Order: sequence, then C-alpha cells, then structure tokens
Amino acid sequence: MTGGLKNRGKSKADVDERRMAVEEYAATKLPHIGSYSFDPLLAEKNVENMIGCLQVPLGFAGPLAVKGDHAKGEFLVPMATTEGALLASVNRGCSAITAAGGANVVIIKDEMTRAPVFRTKGVRDGQRVAKWVDDNYDVVKRTAEATTSHGKLLSIKPFASGRSLFLRFSYDTGDAMGMNMATIATEAASRLIEKETGAVLISVSGNMCIDKKPAAIDSILGRGKLVLADVTVPRAVVEERLKTTVAKAVETNYRKNLVGSALASSLGFNAHVANIIAAVYLATGQDPAQVAEASMAMTNCEDADGDLYVSVRLPCLELGTVGGGTRLPCQKEALSMIDCVGAGKVKRLAEIVAALALAGELSTLAAQSAGELGKAHQSLGR
Amino acid sequence: MTGGLKNRGKSKADVDERRMAVEEYAATKLPHIGSYSFDPLLAEKNVENMIGCLQVPLGFAGPLAVKGDHAKGEFLVPMATTEGALLASVNRGCSAITAAGGANVVIIKDEMTRAPVFRTKGVRDGQRVAKWVDDNYDVVKRTAEATTSHGKLLSIKPFASGRSLFLRFSYDTGDAMGMNMATIATEAASRLIEKETGAVLISVSGNMCIDKKPAAIDSILGRGKLVLADVTVPRAVVEERLKTTVAKAVETNYRKNLVGSALASSLGFNAHVANIIAAVYLATGQDPAQVAEASMAMTNCEDADGDLYVSVRLPCLELGTVGGGTRLPCQKEALSMIDCVGAGKVKRLAEIVAALALAGELSTLAAQSAGELGKAHQSLGR
Amino acid sequence: MTGGLKNRGKSKADVDERRMAVEEYAATKLPHIGSYSFDPLLAEKNVENMIGCLQVPLGFAGPLAVKGDHAKGEFLVPMATTEGALLASVNRGCSAITAAGGANVVIIKDEMTRAPVFRTKGVRDGQRVAKWVDDNYDVVKRTAEATTSHGKLLSIKPFASGRSLFLRFSYDTGDAMGMNMATIATEAASRLIEKETGAVLISVSGNMCIDKKPAAIDSILGRGKLVLADVTVPRAVVEERLKTTVAKAVETNYRKNLVGSALASSLGFNAHVANIIAAVYLATGQDPAQVAEASMAMTNCEDADGDLYVSVRLPCLELGTVGGGTRLPCQKEALSMIDCVGAGKVKRLAEIVAALALAGELSTLAAQSAGELGKAHQSLGR
Amino acid sequence: MTGGLKNRGKSKADVDERRMAVEEYAATKLPHIGSYSFDPLLAEKNVENMIGCLQVPLGFAGPLAVKGDHAKGEFLVPMATTEGALLASVNRGCSAITAAGGANVVIIKDEMTRAPVFRTKGVRDGQRVAKWVDDNYDVVKRTAEATTSHGKLLSIKPFASGRSLFLRFSYDTGDAMGMNMATIATEAASRLIEKETGAVLISVSGNMCIDKKPAAIDSILGRGKLVLADVTVPRAVVEERLKTTVAKAVETNYRKNLVGSALASSLGFNAHVANIIAAVYLATGQDPAQVAEASMAMTNCEDADGDLYVSVRLPCLELGTVGGGTRLPCQKEALSMIDCVGAGKVKRLAEIVAALALAGELSTLAAQSAGELGKAHQSLGR
Repeated sequence: MTGGLKNRGKSKADVDERRMAVEEYAATKLPHIGSYSFDPLLAEKNVENMIGCLQVPLGFAGPLAVKGDHAKGEFLVPMATTEGALLASVNRGCSAITAAGGANVVIIKDEMTRAPVFRTKGVRDGQRVAKWVDDNYDVVKRTAEATTSHGKLLSIKPFASGRSLFLRFSYDTGDAMGMNMATIATEAASRLIEKETGAVLISVSGNMCIDKKPAAIDSILGRGKLVLADVTVPRAVVEERLKTTVAKAVETNYRKNLVGSALASSLGFNAHVANIIAAVYLATGQDPAQVAEASMAMTNCEDADGDLYVSVRLPCLELGTVGGGTRLPCQKEALSMIDCVGAGKVKRLAEIVAALALAGELSTLAAQSAGELGKAHQSLGR
Repeated sequence: MTGGLKNRGKSKADVDERRMAVEEYAATKLPHIGSYSFDPLLAEKNVENMIGCLQVPLGFAGPLAVKGDHAKGEFLVPMATTEGALLASVNRGCSAITAAGGANVVIIKDEMTRAPVFRTKGVRDGQRVAKWVDDNYDVVKRTAEATTSHGKLLSIKPFASGRSLFLRFSYDTGDAMGMNMATIATEAASRLIEKETGAVLISVSGNMCIDKKPAAIDSILGRGKLVLADVTVPRAVVEERLKTTVAKAVETNYRKNLVGSALASSLGFNAHVANIIAAVYLATGQDPAQVAEASMAMTNCEDADGDLYVSVRLPCLELGTVGGGTRLPCQKEALSMIDCVGAGKVKRLAEIVAALALAGELSTLAAQSAGELGKAHQSLGR
Repeated sequence: MTGGLKNRGKSKADVDERRMAVEEYAATKLPHIGSYSFDPLLAEKNVENMIGCLQVPLGFAGPLAVKGDHAKGEFLVPMATTEGALLASVNRGCSAITAAGGANVVIIKDEMTRAPVFRTKGVRDGQRVAKWVDDNYDVVKRTAEATTSHGKLLSIKPFASGRSLFLRFSYDTGDAMGMNMATIATEAASRLIEKETGAVLISVSGNMCIDKKPAAIDSILGRGKLVLADVTVPRAVVEERLKTTVAKAVETNYRKNLVGSALASSLGFNAHVANIIAAVYLATGQDPAQVAEASMAMTNCEDADGDLYVSVRLPCLELGTVGGGTRLPCQKEALSMIDCVGAGKVKRLAEIVAALALAGELSTLAAQSAGELGKAHQSLGR
Repeated sequence: MTGGLKNRGKSKADVDERRMAVEEYAATKLPHIGSYSFDPLLAEKNVENMIGCLQVPLGFAGPLAVKGDHAKGEFLVPMATTEGALLASVNRGCSAITAAGGANVVIIKDEMTRAPVFRTKGVRDGQRVAKWVDDNYDVVKRTAEATTSHGKLLSIKPFASGRSLFLRFSYDTGDAMGMNMATIATEAASRLIEKETGAVLISVSGNMCIDKKPAAIDSILGRGKLVLADVTVPRAVVEERLKTTVAKAVETNYRKNLVGSALASSLGFNAHVANIIAAVYLATGQDPAQVAEASMAMTNCEDADGDLYVSVRLPCLELGTVGGGTRLPCQKEALSMIDCVGAGKVKRLAEIVAALALAGELSTLAAQSAGELGKAHQSLGR
C-alpha cells in the first residue's frame, strides 16, 4: 500500500490511495483531511503529493465601508483563521470605520519585482554590463515581454557590489500576483544579457527582489501594491464603541508602534497587520508566505482636533485575483463575497485588504490602550 | 435573512444561517465554504462570525530523516499550500537529506516573550522602576505564574528610552505556542508593577516582544524556539539528485542569500524559508501570521571537502502542539502524521519543522544554481 | 630626499624629514601641518608615518548644567569642529537646559565587547564548544584577565549559524575605552578555547562585537556606555529662548525622528547626535570612527503638562579618559576643561557627553520646528 | 575675566580673551590649544566660541596606485588619527594594492539629498500634494536653483505615511559636499509648495534625507558619491606581503563581514571602513559626523583563480573640495598632497578615498585572517 506514496497521479483515486499510504506509514487516520468537496484535478497546479484538504474556519468582518478608487461601498470581508478573538476584534474596527464614514484608500505604486544576480569580472566590468542593459533596454524589454501576455516591464534598476551585479526588474503584472510571470520573463531577459555581455547568471532571484523576506528595499520602494489607508474616527465613536480615548490611542501608538518598534530595530511599525493579512490572504487564495513583507506596515495615530486620525501604510501587498490559489473553489467563493473574482479586480481587492488592515489596527490599539488585551484573550479563549 | 449577520451563535445551524445571510448580502453562493466535516462548536475558540471552512490542498514531503534530540527517524511531513511546485521542491530536498543520512537539529533556546510598555516620569524614575522589578523579581514571578498552570517566567529584561520603559518578559510555555499565556501572565504582573511603582501601564504589548513583525531583537535573541539544522550532502547526491555542483550551490548562496540580502537591507538571509514555514504552520494549526518573524532565517552553504554543507538558523519558531489551531480536526490529523499531537511533543515538532526548512532551502538553492527556477515554475504551473 | 618617506623614526627631526619628502613627492608645501607645539615622541603610540599635525578649530558650549551620578554642576564642554553653526546651536541648547535646572543623566550599562568567530564542524559541534565555554567559564575568564591589569570579563554570549560560532565577550574596561584591552584578552581566551575544543579561530573580531559599524545588536544591548538623559524645559524657556512652541517641537520630533527615520529604515532616531559626538570625541581624544554606532541614538519629545520633555538614549558611548588620544597635549587640556583627565573620570565624561547630545537635539529640533534651519546655515555660513 | 565667555568676536585677541576666560572658569591651563598657526578669522565660518585649535597627529599612507576615471596615478594620502597602528595597517594595504597594479574605482552615482516633511490632511490629500509637485516640477526646480549658483536639482521622490509627506530632493552640488546648498534650496522650494498646496512644512529635514544617521535608504539608493573599488591581488603578494593565504582571507571575510554582520543585524558589512573614512575626512576638512553613513560599506573577498579579489562598495561618500573645513590652512595643505584643492577635484578625491578604504579593508582582513590583530595592537601600542 505504501506504494501510494510514490504515485504521481492527481485524480481523486490517486489522492485517496496516497492518503491511505500515509495513514499506513504513520499509523494514523486522516478522515477529515480526506473530506473535501471538489475534484482534486482542480488543484493540480496548486499542490503535489496531495492527500486531501485542510479545513480552516472561515468567517467575515464587516460591513466595512471603503472609499477607494476601485472599491467603493460596504463589504463583508472573508477571513480564515484559527486565532480566536481576531475576527471579533477586526469586526469592531470595521464597525468604527463604517460609523466614521469609511476608510480612504489610495494605491500609490504597483510593481512586481524580480532581481537576478550576475557574476561580472569586477566593478568596471559590472558598469559595462549595466550600461549595456541601459543602452539596450528596448530589446531586453521585448525579450522579457515575449514570455507573457499580460506582463509589462516598467524598469530595470542596477545595484552592484564587487563582482555581483543585481538587476531589479519591475513589472506591471495585471490581475495576477505576478511572481511566476516576472520570474519567467526575467529569466528570458537574463539569458539574453548573459549572451550579449558575457556576465554569468548565477540565480534568477538574487534577493534584491526580494520575495518572502522582510527587507528595507521593499519597505522603501514597495513591492506589489503600495497602499495607504486612513480614517478620522469621531471622538464619540472612539469613546463609545472603542471604549478608549483619543489621547490613550495616540499614546499607545506612539510608545508601542513607534518607540517600541524602533528600539526593537523592527521593520514593522504596527500592532498586528500580519494577522489581518494572513487571514484575508488565506481566505482569498493569496500566498501566506508573503506575510513576511506585508508585515512591514506602518500605523500612525494622531489627535485631529479632538477626533482620532488613524492611518496604515502597506508597502507590499502582493496579491492577485487570477492564478495561484484564486482558482480553487472555496477561495473563489471567498473572493466572490467582495466581488473580486477574476480579471479587472485586483486593485479593488488591494483596497479592501488595506481598509481591513486599518480596521484591525484601530481595534487592537483601542483594546491595548484601554487595557483590554489580556481580557479579550481570556474571554474569547484565544 | 440578513439578521443572520448578527447572530452570535456557534452551532451548525447558526453558521448555516449566517452563511446564507452573507450569500444574500453579497449576492453570491458559497457551497464549498459550507462543506465542512466537523461540528463548528469545536471551533468556537478559534473563530467568530464563522460561515464555514476554507479548504486548502494538503500534501506531504518526505520521508525526511531527522536526527534531533526529540525527533529521530523518518517522517512524512504535512504541508498545506496553493503554490504549485513547492511540495515537489521540498520533497526533492527531503530526498537528498535522507540520502545524506538525515538532518542534524538542535534547539538552542526556547522562550516566549511579551514586553509591556510603561510611562514613567523620566529616565531616573524609569531606573527606579526597573530596579524595583529587579529587587522584587520573586513576587512579580509569583504574580505572573499564578495565572497559568504551565507557564514559567524565566527572566525580565528592561529597556528604556525617555519616559517609555519596556520590560521584556520571557517564559517557558510548555507545549503551547504561549502568546496567550504570556499575555495574561504579563498583564497580571504589570498591574502589580503599576500599583507598586506608580509607573503607568500603556500597553501590555509594547513591541519589544515583538510579535508578528520582523525585528532584529527577535533575530538576535530568539523568540519561541531558536533552532539550528544542518546536513552535509555528498557530492554525488548533489550532482545526481540535485542536478547541480557544490561550487554552484555555494556561489548561489553567497551572492543571493548573503550579498543580495545584505544589499537589500533584509533581516532574512535565506531563499524561501517563509514558504516552508507557512505551509507546515498552516497544516499543523500554527499561526501563519508568525511567518513574519520566522522568515528571518539564515542559510549557509559551504564546500566541505568536496561535499555540500548546508545549514539553516531559525531564530523564531513560534509553535505549539496544544491550544490554538491544533485543536481542530484536520490540523490534529496532520500533527498525527508526525506523531506530534498534544503534550510533550512541541520540541519534536520544532525539530521536524527546522529539518523541513533545511530541505526547502537545499532544493531551491540547487534549482536556482542550476538555472532551473523559471523552468520549474513553468512545468509545474505555479 | 624622498628617502624620508621610508624613515621609521618618530623624533621631530624624523617627522620634519618625512614631511619634506612628502612636500617634494607631491610638489606642495605643508607649513601649517608642520606647525605643532609638542614633541612628536608623545604621539608615537598614536600614529605612524607622522608628518605633523592637523589643526582643528576648538570651541566650547556651555555652561551646561548636568545632574548625573558622576558629573554634577555646570560645565564648559570642548568641541572641535569645522562645521559652522554647530557650536552656536549646541550652546543655545545648553542655555535652555541650564535654565531648566540641568539635564538628568543615568548610565544604564557599561560593557565593552569583542566577539571572535570560530569555525566548528557543524551545529551540534558548535553546541559542544559553546557548552565547553560555559562549563569552563572560570578558566576562560582567568586566561582573558591575565592579559590586563584593569579589564574584567563580565560574560560570554554564544551565537551560532551553521559552522560559524560567535562568542560575544563583555568586559568592564575601567577608564579606558577598552577595545585594545578587550581584543588582547579575547585573543588569549580564544587561543585557549581553540586548543581545548578543536574549534578553529577564524578572526578575533567576528562582527558580532560590533565595532565601527551601525548594528541593531549594539543598539539593543548597548556597547561601551549605554546612557539616558532627559530634561523638562519650561514652556516659557521654549518660547522665549528656543523661539518655538512645545507643540511644534513635539510634532517635529514625531514626524522627523520617528516617522521619517522609520520610513528610511534607519537605526538612528535622532536629529544630529553624530554632530555632537564627533565634535566632543575629537576634542577629548576619543575615536571619531565610533561615531558610526554612537549615531544610533533615539530622541523623544513629549508635552509634559505644557512644558517640553526631551530625552536622548545613547546606546553606544565608547570612550575613555586614559589611553588612546587622551594622552596627547591638546586633548588632555580639553579633558581638563571638564575635569575629566585620567583615572576615575570616564563615567563623568560619559554623562557630560550625553547631556551635550541632549542640548544639541533640543536646539536643532527647536530650530527645525521654527523653520530656522536654512536661515541658521545661511547667516552662520555653514 | 569670565566676561570673555560671552564675547562674540572672532579675532585672535577675542579668541585669546575667551580662552583665558575658560582657563579661569575651569581652573586649568590650555597652552597647546592656544598654539595655532593661522589667523582665526579664517575659521569664522567654521566654528563659534573659538578658544584655539586641537592638534591631531597627521601622517600619510601610500604610495597608493589608483585607476579611477578622475584619479590616475600614485598618491600619498593624508590621514589624521590618534589610533595607533591604523596608518601602518592601511599603508600595508596600499603597498599590496600598488604591487597589484592599482585599485579600480568607479563612481556610480552622485547625488546629495534633503527631504522635508510636510503635514497634509491625509493620504488622499498627500497624493494631491505629491501630484502637484510632479506636475509643477519645473517651477519647483527653478525656485530651488535660484538660491544657488552651483546646485542642480535632479529629482524629487515622494514618500508618505498617513498625514506625513516626505519629498526627497536630490541635487548635483558640484565640488561642495552640498548639505548647506541643498538645505537652502530645498527650504525655498518647500515654501513654494507650502504656499501653493496648503501642505504645512514641519521640518526642512524629515530624516528621509537622511544625514548623519545610518539608514537603509542611503545604503540602497546612495547619498553623496556611491563608489565601487576593487583589486585582484596576486597570490604571491597575499602570501609574502600580507602574510596570509587567499583561502584564509576569503573565509575571514565570509564569516566576519557577511555572516557576522548579518547576525548582528548590521547595516555595515565591512571590517573597519569607518576608521579610514574618519581619518581621511578629518585630514581633508570633511565632516567626521558623516562617518555614520559612510560606515555602511560592503566588502567582498573572492578567490579569483588562485589570486585574491577584494572589493568595497561605499554607498555614501559625502565630501567636497570647496567650502566647509576645506577652507582651513592645514586641511587645504592635506588636500594639496593629493592635488585635490578647490573646484573640479571632488570626484578625484572620492576615488582616492575609496581606494584608501579598500587598502584598509585588505590589510585588516589579512591581519585578522593571519591571527595578527591582537599582536598588532600590542606591538604598536594602540
């Protein structure tokens, strides 16, 4: 039976055989993992060695009023999590934002990046190669774009140290998150550069991209969507609904998200943006590993003539409404809850996610400033 | 029907009513989200506003040979993901590690932290408060530990800037990930400190903890489990199974994971540890938001007398085998695949996760150094 | 004559011969460099290839009222600089601090560090070596301390990644800055560790020390003296002497030193602490290269019941009152201006330097918040 | 006599009177500080409250062969320091570089930056202001450039978080270091922006510049001159002159400057670039406080077919050959040693400084890899 461990198939029968082999190997039973509601062939581009599905509790937060350029209106936003109290908290933030008239959201920048690293003969040779790329940008661009129907190359920025030359390629990847597209296009362009200049391609990803690692370059220059959101919550809403005061919220943000994060030498100046991003990414078929860079958000709170101004800067929202996990049934249904299925929807999704992150920050800062964090954990069994 | 949006219930009927209300609100249908195999009361401590479950494809990588202090043997490790090619890649790494005799794994440190921030009257007053805490460590410890049956306070480290005083509490939290436990215990201790010293508690979490944000303090001092893993892969295995050479793998790691990450001012010196962590965290009921700090891993490759030495340093593996998402049926089944259900298993889990991260790094570095990354993405439809 | 370039002597005649050789080589004249007032043999431990002296304008700021544990009273603090407006600005800050009753200063920590890196056989072997050091701490300490009459080893902290093992040695170095002492003591201890454990010493400085580079480990844990200073400046002084308002100063600090520095992914959350440190280090014979880590200071401004609370956290004041440049005539005279010559004075010096940095921050924040920065540069010809 | 403390004069008599007042105040004598060789009116734009001069020992390193675009030939480079062994060490590096045929140096980028911070009404308003600046770039540029005869505005890059809007202005500042010029020009432009958009200028320096603080934005994008230097040292020179082997030097650089710095979460990936920069900046009248960002250099060592390839990347060389300290007699003489006095020489100076930093790295890495660091400190009395 353990032969099933090695079967390469992707049909329901293959998955079942493989799961049974695992059960036998590990001397366990996996009935819930084996309970899933769709044809595994639908997941053939999403996973290998499939033995079933993991069920993650899914809820919603909202209605959340969003005033973006692409998302306008009120939304019930799907979140998948196992962390008790998270949805209740975000939901409270949504309620406050909606009572305040909604969150303003603007997308400042939208570029997916990939940065190969080449070995050159030295600093002068590296400059020669960088100059060749600059002089021949058009052919490099054509070569990169020939591999994709949707991706557009926007720029190539060179960085060098010694014999290492990094070329940071930036793309518009349409409604896809775009890592795959950017990788394939950049590899083609890199092969051309290698051939024409003699520089040796060491890796198509040289970590100046930089994917799935927290890094200042992404925080400063952005990766995926760089999105800003804010809201001014009237004092009455702060006091009645959020059970704190403007002064307390401002002080909590100052001592925790600015002074505390700075002392910790953190790249994240926020309360728990990663929580919101992880839950909504998971629900909508995004890549939860990209929480690594999404967590570098900055939250600001200020007293605005007696009301509470709150903002969040999200430098790296890497997401898509086509491709990847968005193809799967549950994920597509979750996207449908906010009308974000398929082409033409990715900016709408980015704006809703940013507003949701703002809701999460607002609620947690309020709870912490009111001394309620431990209590919330206790009562909601987190 | 939209009244269902506001129901507070947690039974199957409540969940169904709520989901139907969402369907009506959003004018969509959510049949797959509604298809789940367990009683939602089981998830009442894991989620609010539940409308169903998200199904995430689950597979395995392995057999993976691990030589830890707690995990010894070969394992089929569960991973939940929607990112095509990930499991195939990690699986190849497992195969190479197992062929090399297994991954060495050691847990260096094991502490969960929580750092409240207090407002003092100034730098001299802050020193007085810090001194009081030091002088009265025993009573602070008793107060903290009175809130928990498993947590043990290990130390309190003070940090101050101006009127902000941070006290970083470190705990042994047994088999739980321990954030909840640490928060409740620290809040109790903080109330005592507030009462006895007059310092004002601003927030039980002051971001010197620091949770769900990438930060040097966690990378340097560790949070959760600080784990090291390594393996020396024989040259023949490198060439035949990983299709690269020792020299190429070493150079790729050098230019990408060291030079590239350094130039990007990154806190993560690895290829894609976040991918592996996200998938295994998800599968086993851990908190995927904590990928933020887990991603700060460091990978090293060296030529060891012609063979390939590879290591990974994981400063922040925050995980548990009790509590949180580990209570849920699928997640518990996934834990059972590696015999990590319940008490006494958390260090075993940490070691397996670290070895799996090593497998992921090894395989991806090999692929990138062999110029195969784009190709893998294309053929596996990622 | 160019034979003088190679003379090894240190007498006045040697210096003169060498300078003349340089004049000939470079076809220039160096009369001012040749005008110095002391016997160059006094500098034989401070420089090689000496051709004369550089004259740097030296002034003072003060009187500055300091309320430290070691420095109590009012001081005229020497500063050497070529940057116009700097002294005038710091002087204004001193005046405001003194009018406010003086700066509170506390030294929180005092440790000089050196961290050799060893090559081990892998993660498990590295743990063995670290354990050996821990088990044999006494003999390691004796070996280190045998090389020095003043240094005391305080602790050794291990850090590892793969085959690299770093041991961060911390010392009390008395009145010396202590790098030399720490290096020699650590080298002796490292040779013992190498002999007893088989680990291979790669470098006595492995950059986990970390000297003359900005790094979070030093900012978080401190290096040299970790010093805090603060003052509450009455509103009237803020408005009349500093020509700004409490609200403006607080907002400037918030947007610039916290939000701006955070967005820049900086390790320094201050306005221009490096300026003050460079000038007073230079004047008193410290090492100006250590401005690199001193610049990682954090400045906080808060409204304290209508008055202006300002503080500075200086994590890395690396300084001495014996050894190094403090032996030279001008530098010793400058130290004498604040009664900091020789043994028993280093903490007094650290406190005065910290208060001076506070004065510099206060004045510049006031100037910037009042929109005076450009104007000051213009009128003082900076 | 202490009335002299308050005299505002800048003549020799004023300086003498002031120094005597300080002597009386501090009950000390300052004869060496009073011994200087030039008319203090020459320093009136460089210092206030002048009481004399500090004499810093000055030597040279070289001949150093440089192959830049502006500096070509061999140089004796002035360095002012009190740190024993530094010049001897750098000198040894110069000798090895010169024996290897000279250091290649290229200037990649040359921009001085200043980034004011404005308060806007929120994220959408901030976008409006940024757009206004973009739409009206020409008039902003004219306004900035009207304040200066040499500065040219190159670009303005906006960054925003909440109500804080930062505009990073980049200038070509000719032969001046340019901070003063950039500040005055940016203040004029900022006043225009304030008037036309209603955004409120909070500070002309908002720390996204970022001056005299270590920060990733400067390391990544550069500030002042971004310079690369390298050399391939023949194996025989490595072994005979540097007393180490290629393999040892490469391993030392790897474990110390890459792994060690990365573990320390440092922004500096080098051995002691700050030492060289501080000494040559001081000698040539640059601002030693800018060592803070210069210290963020990266050094790479590689085995190049049996020879030793060494490079250094200096992202932030902020220097000038006119203005500031370059006006003073000794400093001007030091500049004359390398033919860098006055207009048209700044790039030549930058290239020589970069080559010198390379020499310092090469020598220290060799010494550390040969286990000579402590010994050098001992014998040279550092």
